[in-house]
Amino acid sequence: MKIAVDAMGGDFAPRAIVEGVLLAASELPSDAQIVLIGREDSIREIFKEHNFESSVVEVVHAEEVIEMGEHPTKALSQKPNSSIGVGFKLLKEKAIDIFCSAGNTGAMHVGALFSIKAIEGILRPAIAGYVPQLDGSIAIMLDIGANADCKPEVLAQFGEIGSLYAQYTFQIERPRVALMNIGEEEQKGSLVAQATYPHLKANKRIHFIGNIEGKDLFTNKADVIVTDGFTGNILFKLGESLYEITKQRGIQDDFIDKTNYESIGGSPIIGVNGNVMIAHGISSPTAIKNMIGWAYKQVQANAYLHIAQALA
Amino acid sequence: MKIAVDAMGGDFAPRAIVEGVLLAASELPSDAQIVLIGREDSIREIFKEHNFESSVVEVVHAEEVIEMGEHPTKALSQKPNSSIGVGFKLLKEKAIDIFCSAGNTGAMHVGALFSIKAIEGILRPAIAGYVPQLDGSIAIMLDIGANADCKPEVLAQFGEIGSLYAQYTFQIERPRVALMNIGEEEQKGSLVAQATYPHLKANKRIHFIGNIEGKDLFTNKADVIVTDGFTGNILFKLGESLYEITKQRGIQDDFIDKTNYESIGGSPIIGVNGNVMIAHGISSPTAIKNMIGWAYKQVQANAYLHIAQALA
Repeated sequence: MKIAVDAMGGDFAPRAIVEGVLLAASELPSDAQIVLIGREDSIREIFKEHNFESSVVEVVHAEEVIEMGEHPTKALSQKPNSSIGVGFKLLKEKAIDIFCSAGNTGAMHVGALFSIKAIEGILRPAIAGYVPQLDGSIAIMLDIGANADCKPEVLAQFGEIGSLYAQYTFQIERPRVALMNIGEEEQKGSLVAQATYPHLKANKRIHFIGNIEGKDLFTNKADVIVTDGFTGNILFKLGESLYEITKQRGIQDDFIDKTNYESIGGSPIIGVNGNVMIAHGISSPTAIKNMIGWAYKQVQANAYLHIAQALA
Repeated sequence: MKIAVDAMGGDFAPRAIVEGVLLAASELPSDAQIVLIGREDSIREIFKEHNFESSVVEVVHAEEVIEMGEHPTKALSQKPNSSIGVGFKLLKEKAIDIFCSAGNTGAMHVGALFSIKAIEGILRPAIAGYVPQLDGSIAIMLDIGANADCKPEVLAQFGEIGSLYAQYTFQIERPRVALMNIGEEEQKGSLVAQATYPHLKANKRIHFIGNIEGKDLFTNKADVIVTDGFTGNILFKLGESLYEITKQRGIQDDFIDKTNYESIGGSPIIGVNGNVMIAHGISSPTAIKNMIGWAYKQVQANAYLHIAQALA
């Protein structure tokens, strides 16, 4: 298995990324290899500082870098030899099994759509956030930012692709799918939420448990939380902020530690023909290390193949 | 000053409400009186149990009760002698200065619109949630549930009426108004959020500081947080859930204590011709007591008069 990581993406790249990879390298299962994509000399310099020499990490040179603020589509067409451009080229050729980056999120999203493309039948691929639950399990919430405005049909499909992702990646036999809403009753919510409910309810391929509310985000009510990328992003970022708030106040707690973005490190793009994971721009070495751990599980599950099969 | 409380509204009414009023009665400033509206015999029975005899609390009999699940408009027209019906009648007649209830939220909202009515020029009155901030101050977020779908003009007006409310109720000279969004840049967000930004920016009567994100909910970035009642409700309920989560995990913290719904107890309806406060259905005596404390401040400020003046 080849897990490719964009060495140049993120606020602290390449150092934080390469150091995260070195942390991951020592813990990686024997069937996995990491492919670092980026400026080879910069990467090897950090290897050298750490006296790192191992065949577990391969380096693929990419001359250019897409910066955080660049326009995704423009940057991708003008910089085919950027680390993101090269990553998606390798992913499309199946030379790697997953491509991960803490770089320009828009470029990652557009890059996936242009290279490996959306799975046939998918209305809109989504970025799914892992949401730690109080019982130690993990739920996914989608979308958390790729699609700020969603039609009911799109939200309903998030329920189905999220369910398949959770089933195969987390080995949950019958994931509980819920719609994030402002009340438990079917007729509650925005016009879009009201129109989404019957779609989810009618879909016999998922186990729809109805609406959940903001207070249920962490309370193991659902395995798959359906929401648009506007509400989802705001909720997800509030959830992640708990760790900073409590840390500043001297509180240490195992559950709250898990809400720290570092403890998961990455968010998959679901609905495309391959494995893609994006990470926070601020990613630290620990975050990158943990993302690689999840990337390994995502490749083992290859949920995208099951999604393609279900929609065929 | 007369602070009226619906004795019959809420999951634990009348007991929790009356006991909350008794707690408040002993702490109330001398210029304030509480008017309890509901079934007089039930109320007096609880007085008796507590050996309560004081002229600080007046009882106004109301024979009927609007239940939590009832259709607001129907219930109000069919039950004019309900505690909510009588409350709004007294508020309209200015026999009381504020009407508070933990009962049917829809009936409270519709009751306000039908009796004291929206202030002229107000597009949609909003329910505003008090959001405790890490520095000890309080921000308000509106809307948190009355309007699940909002047009940009409505959101923009929330910024203005929220600013006036915060200015007069919290004595903040120049409240910082922010739009809850998925990024800091002006062009970020849903179509509605994108269209709202220029309205807020152009309004010279408010101090608009731009977008804030989910992670900024508690971090003293803004005094007035503008959002629709869908996202606002979900965010607010997640915020309130922190207290339960940390309490279960044995964490005690002064800030998190303030996120407990009980510590504030009530949410004003802003944009109507009078003072109205609604409380959680689950309200405990402590919540009711604290709501009455805020009701006192709201009446002292009478922000609604300033809002009416600003829109005249």
